[in-house]
Amino acid sequence: MSASAFLRRLFGRANGEIHQQTQRLVSLCETLLSEHGEITGVALAREALACYQTLGEREREEFFDVLAKTFSPSPDAVGQAADAYRADPIPENLIRLQESAESLRPELFRRLNAAPGATAALVEMRRLILKGIPTHPQWKVLDNDLLKLLRSWFNRGFLRLERIDWRTSAIVLEKLIQYEAVHAIQGWRDLRRRLESDRRCFAFFHPQLPEEPIIFIEVALTRGMSAHVQPLLDLKSPVAVPANADCAMFYSITNCQEGLRGISFGNLLIKQVAEELKREFPHLRRFATLSPVPGFRRWLGEHGGPELLKRIDDPAWHLGEVPEAVQAQLTRLCARYLLHAKQGDEPLDPVARFHLGNGASLERLNWMGDTSEQGMARSAGLMVNYVYWLAEVERNHERYFREHAVVAAPAVEKLAREAAPAAEKGKAA
Amino acid sequence: MSASAFLRRLFGRANGEIHQQTQRLVSLCETLLSEHGEITGVALAREALACYQTLGEREREEFFDVLAKTFSPSPDAVGQAADAYRADPIPENLIRLQESAESLRPELFRRLNAAPGATAALVEMRRLILKGIPTHPQWKVLDNDLLKLLRSWFNRGFLRLERIDWRTSAIVLEKLIQYEAVHAIQGWRDLRRRLESDRRCFAFFHPQLPEEPIIFIEVALTRGMSAHVQPLLDLKSPVAVPANADCAMFYSITNCQEGLRGISFGNLLIKQVAEELKREFPHLRRFATLSPVPGFRRWLGEHGGPELLKRIDDPAWHLGEVPEAVQAQLTRLCARYLLHAKQGDEPLDPVARFHLGNGASLERLNWMGDTSEQGMARSAGLMVNYVYWLAEVERNHERYFREHAVVAAPAVEKLAREAAPAAEKGKAA
Amino acid sequence: MSASAFLRRLFGRANGEIHQQTQRLVSLCETLLSEHGEITGVALAREALACYQTLGEREREEFFDVLAKTFSPSPDAVGQAADAYRADPIPENLIRLQESAESLRPELFRRLNAAPGATAALVEMRRLILKGIPTHPQWKVLDNDLLKLLRSWFNRGFLRLERIDWRTSAIVLEKLIQYEAVHAIQGWRDLRRRLESDRRCFAFFHPQLPEEPIIFIEVALTRGMSAHVQPLLDLKSPVAVPANADCAMFYSITNCQEGLRGISFGNLLIKQVAEELKREFPHLRRFATLSPVPGFRRWLGEHGGPELLKRIDDPAWHLGEVPEAVQAQLTRLCARYLLHAKQGDEPLDPVARFHLGNGASLERLNWMGDTSEQGMARSAGLMVNYVYWLAEVERNHERYFREHAVVAAPAVEKLAREAAPAAEKGKAA
Amino acid sequence: MSASAFLRRLFGRANGEIHQQTQRLVSLCETLLSEHGEITGVALAREALACYQTLGEREREEFFDVLAKTFSPSPDAVGQAADAYRADPIPENLIRLQESAESLRPELFRRLNAAPGATAALVEMRRLILKGIPTHPQWKVLDNDLLKLLRSWFNRGFLRLERIDWRTSAIVLEKLIQYEAVHAIQGWRDLRRRLESDRRCFAFFHPQLPEEPIIFIEVALTRGMSAHVQPLLDLKSPVAVPANADCAMFYSITNCQEGLRGISFGNLLIKQVAEELKREFPHLRRFATLSPVPGFRRWLGEHGGPELLKRIDDPAWHLGEVPEAVQAQLTRLCARYLLHAKQGDEPLDPVARFHLGNGASLERLNWMGDTSEQGMARSAGLMVNYVYWLAEVERNHERYFREHAVVAAPAVEKLAREAAPAAEKGKAA
Repeated sequence: MSASAFLRRLFGRANGEIHQQTQRLVSLCETLLSEHGEITGVALAREALACYQTLGEREREEFFDVLAKTFSPSPDAVGQAADAYRADPIPENLIRLQESAESLRPELFRRLNAAPGATAALVEMRRLILKGIPTHPQWKVLDNDLLKLLRSWFNRGFLRLERIDWRTSAIVLEKLIQYEAVHAIQGWRDLRRRLESDRRCFAFFHPQLPEEPIIFIEVALTRGMSAHVQPLLDLKSPVAVPANADCAMFYSITNCQEGLRGISFGNLLIKQVAEELKREFPHLRRFATLSPVPGFRRWLGEHGGPELLKRIDDPAWHLGEVPEAVQAQLTRLCARYLLHAKQGDEPLDPVARFHLGNGASLERLNWMGDTSEQGMARSAGLMVNYVYWLAEVERNHERYFREHAVVAAPAVEKLAREAAPAAEKGKAA
Repeated sequence: MSASAFLRRLFGRANGEIHQQTQRLVSLCETLLSEHGEITGVALAREALACYQTLGEREREEFFDVLAKTFSPSPDAVGQAADAYRADPIPENLIRLQESAESLRPELFRRLNAAPGATAALVEMRRLILKGIPTHPQWKVLDNDLLKLLRSWFNRGFLRLERIDWRTSAIVLEKLIQYEAVHAIQGWRDLRRRLESDRRCFAFFHPQLPEEPIIFIEVALTRGMSAHVQPLLDLKSPVAVPANADCAMFYSITNCQEGLRGISFGNLLIKQVAEELKREFPHLRRFATLSPVPGFRRWLGEHGGPELLKRIDDPAWHLGEVPEAVQAQLTRLCARYLLHAKQGDEPLDPVARFHLGNGASLERLNWMGDTSEQGMARSAGLMVNYVYWLAEVERNHERYFREHAVVAAPAVEKLAREAAPAAEKGKAA
Repeated sequence: MSASAFLRRLFGRANGEIHQQTQRLVSLCETLLSEHGEITGVALAREALACYQTLGEREREEFFDVLAKTFSPSPDAVGQAADAYRADPIPENLIRLQESAESLRPELFRRLNAAPGATAALVEMRRLILKGIPTHPQWKVLDNDLLKLLRSWFNRGFLRLERIDWRTSAIVLEKLIQYEAVHAIQGWRDLRRRLESDRRCFAFFHPQLPEEPIIFIEVALTRGMSAHVQPLLDLKSPVAVPANADCAMFYSITNCQEGLRGISFGNLLIKQVAEELKREFPHLRRFATLSPVPGFRRWLGEHGGPELLKRIDDPAWHLGEVPEAVQAQLTRLCARYLLHAKQGDEPLDPVARFHLGNGASLERLNWMGDTSEQGMARSAGLMVNYVYWLAEVERNHERYFREHAVVAAPAVEKLAREAAPAAEKGKAA
Repeated sequence: MSASAFLRRLFGRANGEIHQQTQRLVSLCETLLSEHGEITGVALAREALACYQTLGEREREEFFDVLAKTFSPSPDAVGQAADAYRADPIPENLIRLQESAESLRPELFRRLNAAPGATAALVEMRRLILKGIPTHPQWKVLDNDLLKLLRSWFNRGFLRLERIDWRTSAIVLEKLIQYEAVHAIQGWRDLRRRLESDRRCFAFFHPQLPEEPIIFIEVALTRGMSAHVQPLLDLKSPVAVPANADCAMFYSITNCQEGLRGISFGNLLIKQVAEELKREFPHLRRFATLSPVPGFRRWLGEHGGPELLKRIDDPAWHLGEVPEAVQAQLTRLCARYLLHAKQGDEPLDPVARFHLGNGASLERLNWMGDTSEQGMARSAGLMVNYVYWLAEVERNHERYFREHAVVAAPAVEKLAREAAPAAEKGKAA
């Protein structure tokens, strides 16, 4: 489609209402999409990107609206191409159909990407679009186009696993402090402890975002499987000798780029890090997580029984002595929640879904594993060890997808069975 | 679509005829496309790629056939989605339509790309497909899918301009020797001369192919615009002082990756190199090419007049003294060819099309500019200087695309006018 | 000298008193010095270094004593060689004399240096020796040997100037915080402010100590010459646009390695940094320091006059309003101190000695330039701008060394003249 | 000593005869040695170096003469300092003695080294001095000063072992071709074969000479110990699978820098390379050389017996069939030569001296191991395998130095015994 056709289409719209800067940007985008744009390339892309970055919030919304409305394929043209392919499914008809069904946005984004810094800007653009979709559902097509494009660009083949330690540049380390989403990092001293010789930290990077971690994971090398997270987070904890460790505890994993939501990096990261650690420490016998149960407390609200709920309603309920019976009841209910509470065929708990889907097995529940405010509020203080037995990951993963089987240690299964009556009582109430 | 559906589809086909290794690869591809595949990732991709690389020619053809036939979208499903979008062009219907119109191949290639070396393998795969299309037209859909994917991955934003010199690794330098397509490099001594201090060589690289130039350009820094290429190629030519140069002569530009055909890198390279050179040598006044006229000799065959043709039919015609009149006649015809011989609205000569489309202007014709066998056979010995006037490139480029205007120096236009009668005579004959 | 000779010499000494670990180390050193040692090299050096690093303080002192006593040249042998050279100064006699005059320690240190980390260990060893010399004057020969060796190894040709910024690794940045000696860095936020875009920081590194700055300098890019240091140190000061700056203010320079004391890096650093900045910001017009006057307050104690001294004895004297007359008096005395107080032929003030000796000129005195506790206690709150006029540095430097001339701005000279009577009065009191 | 004193001394000499450019350089050197020079540093060093590099051969010789004569220590001053030390060997007297005994040259060279490229220039300067010593014995003191300085700078702790392969820059690879001293490299194709996957090449580099190998070694990974070098040098030899190799054959080792003669790198290189290979290929069982016997043919001339000598006098003697007896006789004589021909207490053969001194053992003699012209002329076609048994290297090395013991395989010792009568006969003749 020629540039003038775009202009016609665009200005057919109530164009007088559009801010001047938005108009300028739309016009630059049209030039960029023209044949001219393919050649002039960098300079034009740079100009368009710079213009986009000057937009205020209102203008940016206008721009997204224009993108969503005027750059979509023509329903008639695509309908005809589909008819032709239905009638005669030859290569030529398929190619024509695909071309007519694609919006012009992906090509626009690809050309914009010639400008330095554009990849980061497009990731940020998608973040804003995702944030705005609830109130601007028409932006879904933008999101869809960007997601496909970014999935292609952030293909795992293009990611580089890098170790993060005290030799890493401050510009990257500062971002870990800022992004860490599971157990907040309290400044540089905290970060430094997490990068000592008994810890490991790894991140994926993309060549276009050399100073932006995509996802990172924090690992503690321990003797025996950690049951409680507070000692791992303690700045003053003694630094252990890594050669004595037999476990690698994955205690935090954070996706850094909201604009890449929906593109999965976590399972790949865990597997590559496990391989990397196995190479460095051949004597490691266990790769396990120390994970929260973030949906447990909410689920308890419906399945916990009034007596129990009343008790744990007090924010300080765990600070004094907690009766054995309460501890037993909560632990059993947690086992039941993890093994039997479902969303469709899969576990209701998102962290369980992630690790079990990756092929880990549910190994152990840890009472008062995380006594932080957040740990109490979301997981009722419990934490879980998921274990990645390297030899069984593939099989577990397959069973999970074929039969929705959750692989758990016998002790956990027993806890879940014991919980049944209580849960029923809870329900009955 | 589930893995089993693929299997059904595939084995509905006369599957008994397929070689065992092909079957194994197809099965691996299906697993890779399943949900399972998304997670297991690297190991599976590596296995599939390794399997692909063991295929013999016959098996590879089978594999391409299966890819082309069984992984295309269902005509009915895509037809229905198009109907829905035609009836109600809301975002949801557009997204559904786009999904149903996309074949499964791009996703398969994206997942394959998790394996080390896969990007290079996919570029090579497209090379083989392009080579085979004349006899296997059904592969066009494969080519189309791969082209779109590679265009996305080899986005100019991901390319790095690198200087090539005697500090470059032998593994890359060896490839220049192997790939150079315009003026063949006669071994390491020849290469070395082309990388001396009065020369510059630049290439684009992609992060996934760190030792594979995508495209490269050779530049000579000269006093005055070069008219003849043989002195530039002479191993024993004295090395000039670059500080004295006022011209940068682009005398060779080579696309290295046949598997990336259709993705344009040349104009971007020329512009970035011109900027780079301007930074290093602010006193350079002219950026010009010394280019062949590869379609001239063939065109002459139809427009050259019997007398002229007879004369230049002798391969040694240029070795003795060439009468002034013949020289004048050929030069004028060449000007006419470049300015008036068309393919559609654009110049018939592919090199002219490239440089004029980039915004260069046709500056000068050079008699006996290239007396090599190839230079005589294709360009009748003539060479052209196209000049990139940095201040005018944009405007020229725009005029070329808007009005199909060819910007040429007055002297060249005059030559073309003088040629007219001769050409007519030629035609008349 | 053979290994056994060493052993004899060593054990002729009251060897029973020596700790076992010291004995082991001395024995390793002797092996290392033998012909055997030259060949076996790395393993032996590694062992000796590891042994040295296990020594307690007492053992280390013993080891230094042994080194100082037993590895020195024989007075008789060297005397004879000198006699021979005096009698017949031919090359052979000179070479023999030099060999006999050299102690075995330098060769020992050179061989030790084959072990990884040895260079850093030797720098640290010299630090300990320097610290111990006041109570162990016999170690002077060790210091002398190490100084000559380290001066050779830390030759300026081997140093690399590196920019320090937020992209630098945390391991290096942390050392800046730790080493900064002029204006202490208060943690990571303070450091970050000092590395913003309106600042520059450069350090010299040596290939053998890649994570250890040798010396570093902090620079602020300002409009106009800074008179006060507190705004530069203020974490919340707004970040200026470097393109608008016309001055580069060198406000802190720190030698990091006590073990390299006596090897001068500062003047080279200042000159290279000035060149580097001139390249990046060609519009900079002035390279100046904002420097303390660290000996001023002590000198005032003797030359200040009882009235003045009484007034400034109160640590809070500068907090309220300070009478014009006092301000004038102090400033004049400071000018006098800088221009006329001498140590031999050179200025008494060490900072003045350094910058004036480098060829800077004394440009301006700044009242209340540094109101920090240290600034008040040592410099009575005054700071000085020394200016490096690139075109005059050489000439100034030469005049400084030939005529002990101090180049100062007329205004500063005037102040010094005005101070004369006050100073005399001071002296009279 | 002050600059003027130098001038006096210098011009006391018949200064009128000195070329102007030499005078200018000497004057620059004096300034560089003055206090002034210590500060101005880089610029002055650069100027002096540039001046040196313009000197013609005659002027350079003059400059060396001046350096040798006028910068040596004063015999009287050094004599007095030695007397003082002899009388009272306290630290101060030792330090004073050492200072007075040192010539000013080392300090001059150290200051020169501030100029970019100076280290390489000083290495080259020593090469020229070494070459000139036979006709200019007065330069020995220069050589001695430079040797000490370069030994300090090229300390093994500063050397980096780097693998050389086809990824190495052409600028370095070209130097291998140029420097290879044992088995000449016949251009790029030959080099490429020597860097294939069944070969390894390693070199030492110094941070100041990043593109200059100091020494390099070529290794072939083989099944069984190679007996003949021609197959290893054959461009068309098939590339073996390194995983199948059980031997690492060191078939060439070359010192690249004549100006570093007398500083030993070879034994360190061999040991580090053996460790490196052991890491990469843990299954390697043997590290052995395939070495020439360069002094054998000359020694034969005196000890070979007239009949034998007459036979091998014909350059083509080995081309036809060689009688068993001759082969046996030559092999035995070679064993005898290696085990019993001495220079002092050490083997007469320089290659034997090197490897046996490093702790290798003499494993095997190979008939017609090197049939090249040079191999025949120097080694009578024989080659030797020296084996580095990693567990025994230290012990062998020690025995070599303590008892001058040559460790050889029993078969070689037997050959040497059998040779005795023949050798005697040879002698008798």
